[in-house]
Amino acid sequence: MNKPYICRLLGIITLLIGGSMVMSLPWTIPVFGQVSMFDARGFTALLGSMAISALLGGLLMYIGRNSGGQRLFRKEAIAVVGLSWLMATALGALPFWFSGTCRGVDASGEVVHMDLFDGIFESASGFSGTGATVLTELEDPELVPRAILFWRSETHFLGGLGIMVLFIAILGVGSAGKALMLTEMPGPKHTSSQQRTQKAAWTFAGIFVGLTLVLTALLALQDVSLFDGLCHAFGTIATGGFSTYNNSVEHFQSVGVEMTITLFMAVACTNFTLLYFLVLWKPAKLFGDIEFRVYLIIVAVVSVTVIVALWAGGDYTTVGASTRYGLFQTVSIMTNTGFGTADFNQWNSLSRAVLLLLMFVGGCAGSTSCSVKVIRYILFFKILWLELEQVFHPTVVRPVRLGGKPLENPDIRKDVVLYFGVIVVIFVVGWIALVAVEPDNTWIEAGIPPANKLMDCASAVAATLNGVGPGLGIVGESENYAHFHAASKFVLTWLMLLGRLEVFTILVLFVPRFWRAQYLSPRLSRLQRPSE
Amino acid sequence: MNKPYICRLLGIITLLIGGSMVMSLPWTIPVFGQVSMFDARGFTALLGSMAISALLGGLLMYIGRNSGGQRLFRKEAIAVVGLSWLMATALGALPFWFSGTCRGVDASGEVVHMDLFDGIFESASGFSGTGATVLTELEDPELVPRAILFWRSETHFLGGLGIMVLFIAILGVGSAGKALMLTEMPGPKHTSSQQRTQKAAWTFAGIFVGLTLVLTALLALQDVSLFDGLCHAFGTIATGGFSTYNNSVEHFQSVGVEMTITLFMAVACTNFTLLYFLVLWKPAKLFGDIEFRVYLIIVAVVSVTVIVALWAGGDYTTVGASTRYGLFQTVSIMTNTGFGTADFNQWNSLSRAVLLLLMFVGGCAGSTSCSVKVIRYILFFKILWLELEQVFHPTVVRPVRLGGKPLENPDIRKDVVLYFGVIVVIFVVGWIALVAVEPDNTWIEAGIPPANKLMDCASAVAATLNGVGPGLGIVGESENYAHFHAASKFVLTWLMLLGRLEVFTILVLFVPRFWRAQYLSPRLSRLQRPSE
Repeated sequence: MNKPYICRLLGIITLLIGGSMVMSLPWTIPVFGQVSMFDARGFTALLGSMAISALLGGLLMYIGRNSGGQRLFRKEAIAVVGLSWLMATALGALPFWFSGTCRGVDASGEVVHMDLFDGIFESASGFSGTGATVLTELEDPELVPRAILFWRSETHFLGGLGIMVLFIAILGVGSAGKALMLTEMPGPKHTSSQQRTQKAAWTFAGIFVGLTLVLTALLALQDVSLFDGLCHAFGTIATGGFSTYNNSVEHFQSVGVEMTITLFMAVACTNFTLLYFLVLWKPAKLFGDIEFRVYLIIVAVVSVTVIVALWAGGDYTTVGASTRYGLFQTVSIMTNTGFGTADFNQWNSLSRAVLLLLMFVGGCAGSTSCSVKVIRYILFFKILWLELEQVFHPTVVRPVRLGGKPLENPDIRKDVVLYFGVIVVIFVVGWIALVAVEPDNTWIEAGIPPANKLMDCASAVAATLNGVGPGLGIVGESENYAHFHAASKFVLTWLMLLGRLEVFTILVLFVPRFWRAQYLSPRLSRLQRPSE
Repeated sequence: MNKPYICRLLGIITLLIGGSMVMSLPWTIPVFGQVSMFDARGFTALLGSMAISALLGGLLMYIGRNSGGQRLFRKEAIAVVGLSWLMATALGALPFWFSGTCRGVDASGEVVHMDLFDGIFESASGFSGTGATVLTELEDPELVPRAILFWRSETHFLGGLGIMVLFIAILGVGSAGKALMLTEMPGPKHTSSQQRTQKAAWTFAGIFVGLTLVLTALLALQDVSLFDGLCHAFGTIATGGFSTYNNSVEHFQSVGVEMTITLFMAVACTNFTLLYFLVLWKPAKLFGDIEFRVYLIIVAVVSVTVIVALWAGGDYTTVGASTRYGLFQTVSIMTNTGFGTADFNQWNSLSRAVLLLLMFVGGCAGSTSCSVKVIRYILFFKILWLELEQVFHPTVVRPVRLGGKPLENPDIRKDVVLYFGVIVVIFVVGWIALVAVEPDNTWIEAGIPPANKLMDCASAVAATLNGVGPGLGIVGESENYAHFHAASKFVLTWLMLLGRLEVFTILVLFVPRFWRAQYLSPRLSRLQRPSE
């Protein structure tokens, strides 16, 4: 384990995060149209955070100055990715904290300042692309400086970029998507895997940034300001969901904006390797992909179900309105973005139940989507089916097939089943932990019947573990996580990080053996594709 | 597949069920102290049901008169067990239906008679040992004839006896418990497995009947009438939960009765093989059993958690009351009995959440407990741990060990994981189905906020699939399933049967190939231990 090398790489990432705060600075200056006079509060908070990042990054690079490592081995890569998100979460919390950003106004009219836990929660939510927030008054610059609001959305952008470059291109796409990705990664054939990885990282980063800019431009054409356009593009392409308005995308009151964002949420949840083929004008690759097809079918079936339920349930009087709000919300939840154009917490029970389940689906592997992802469900149900079939035809042992071809690596079966087992365990443990640490009184004070607590907590765990953001009831579309105590935010922060990095990348950091062992096992390399 | 032989065996079981209705007849006659004058309604309903059972049983035996089968092969055994429960459910519904038993009185003061779906629901709930009810006015003989009320509890007895004799002794204890059971089944060594099965069946039946009688006697010593004593003993030993009072065991207002029932619920959820060794005065076998020890630990840890939560949460002012009600409810839910001494739906959220999760645990394999059972959790977490360990030590492939010895059959790993996967899928599908078919209006009419629907439905699915009975909210301790529409009762009826027979025994009945194939695969024999 080359620890100095890890320090050096972590130092570089620390410097990059600190440096990227520069992007938020312009919004403190009146000429960019967001403030009427220079916003010293936001400016100093960002500058202070940059200084700390520079110091810390420099220190880490100094510690790792003699590392000598030139190639990134698997184990170092996993450690760097896991630690990067912890570092990003910590650094990202600083601007919120330093600027004294306000969560909102409490019942007695007092403004409530964000504490460190609030900052860490908001930062983890941003970098993990969750979009769960503790801020209740986004639109008042006195409470939330514009530059800090921009930084909040920018964390989505940085997190999403990090996922594509660090997690997917360097580590591979986790246990499930590798079946698709290994042979399809962008890059010239007959080259080393290191070269292919570098090519893939640049390609993914390019597509990611390109999509963000195109969406910003399309929104600008529909009279969305550059500030709002960038923030919502960050939230869309990273499938994050932070908005600059209290009522999210509903604010724009524009079908065009909603449709544009719906399309780009769906695109951002497509495997970026397939988008790369689309850029190369090979659409057959896209529509021939089994995961993409199932993904489209799920979106279609669930949208229709929700729309029909909304219309038949009398939530909306017209088919048009049911379609408009039903489609947007289905795509927003399925892609784990979490933008809202309607308070789906007020919808009929069937729609709410379907959306809650949908949180656990997510988009395609190799995209910015959090959650379990479509490919794992395809594999899970195929495995379940083969196992049941074996009950009747024990002599016929068939491999799991994907798109007509048997999976090359039979251990994927185990990995997929293990992943589902671990997710269920984390969900149940997270639920009980949240129910235990958050007092029933929180609901009473918020004017919500405490009988709702169990479902609200379940939705909060589902919404954070799967990177969605809003849940039901007290954490629903019109409410937020500000009601929760610090201990609950602490629990949910870890759930967001675990969900974003597909559990194992975070879990291994707490296993002492991970830091001691001389080699990383082939088994882990199957969970996380090697970078060499 | 010897179908005539299946008919003959099914005919015998039909005759046995019809014949056992005789036990309910005495309670129509004043001399037994339950009615002041002869109850013609209950008498004719039972007699009519017996006549139909006799006709049907005779017909089935006539069809199977030339079967010639003398030995019970696995496949026939599975078919007989699965069909027996369907037959029992249908026959058991007749007395409710014929007697015109009333569900209760509706808002306008009209009595509501049970329809066929109500009868089938109540019968399935009885035979499966669930204890979920649609009856709201148990105590009025005008609405519910005493003989019918006794029949309702008697279905618990018959179902529990059937589980011990048909399901566990003949089929084996399902996928999980066989690791323990195969080598430990009662019976002399060096005998054929057929002889051992017969010995086991008689032993289990003897213990089951013995426990029922001892409990009835102990209750009688505490001034519980023979009628109430038998009914509550049936409900306890079969871990069913039907009571003869609207407020269940709370009615007796007796700590002694509660403690007695608590003890016997716990005993009924112990592996009957271990109870057999206890009868032989080998208590070391009992306390040396890993599943039994973990079972006791779970009961202890959860009881203490609930008691502390009740006391700290202010639900009860004294430690004594918290202990009294907390312990009873924990054991009642964990064992999937479902008796109540307090409306736990009113308790604090943590206690309710813990009890809800506990529904999925259940007792030991080889007992009358429904649900997943402790041994499967032991194996599941061991498998999960070994899989995670393999991430770090890929070269060390270790078998799953139980009590120091490796499992003889490595396929148990697959079976256990498959079982959990199937249970999760059934739970989710059942939940969405219930949310979809039961209108939100049901909650509004019952005066409960419809926001509770999702959690109430989840608890209803958990409580029926796991054979508990009462859930939360609209199906909570003080409410019942009478609120639900026929379609919902239909869904829940199937969940009760699936849960009781550990899914596969019911599922295979709907697979055409099961009825065609010439042999039953070794794989299925691993899911269900062979009887030959």
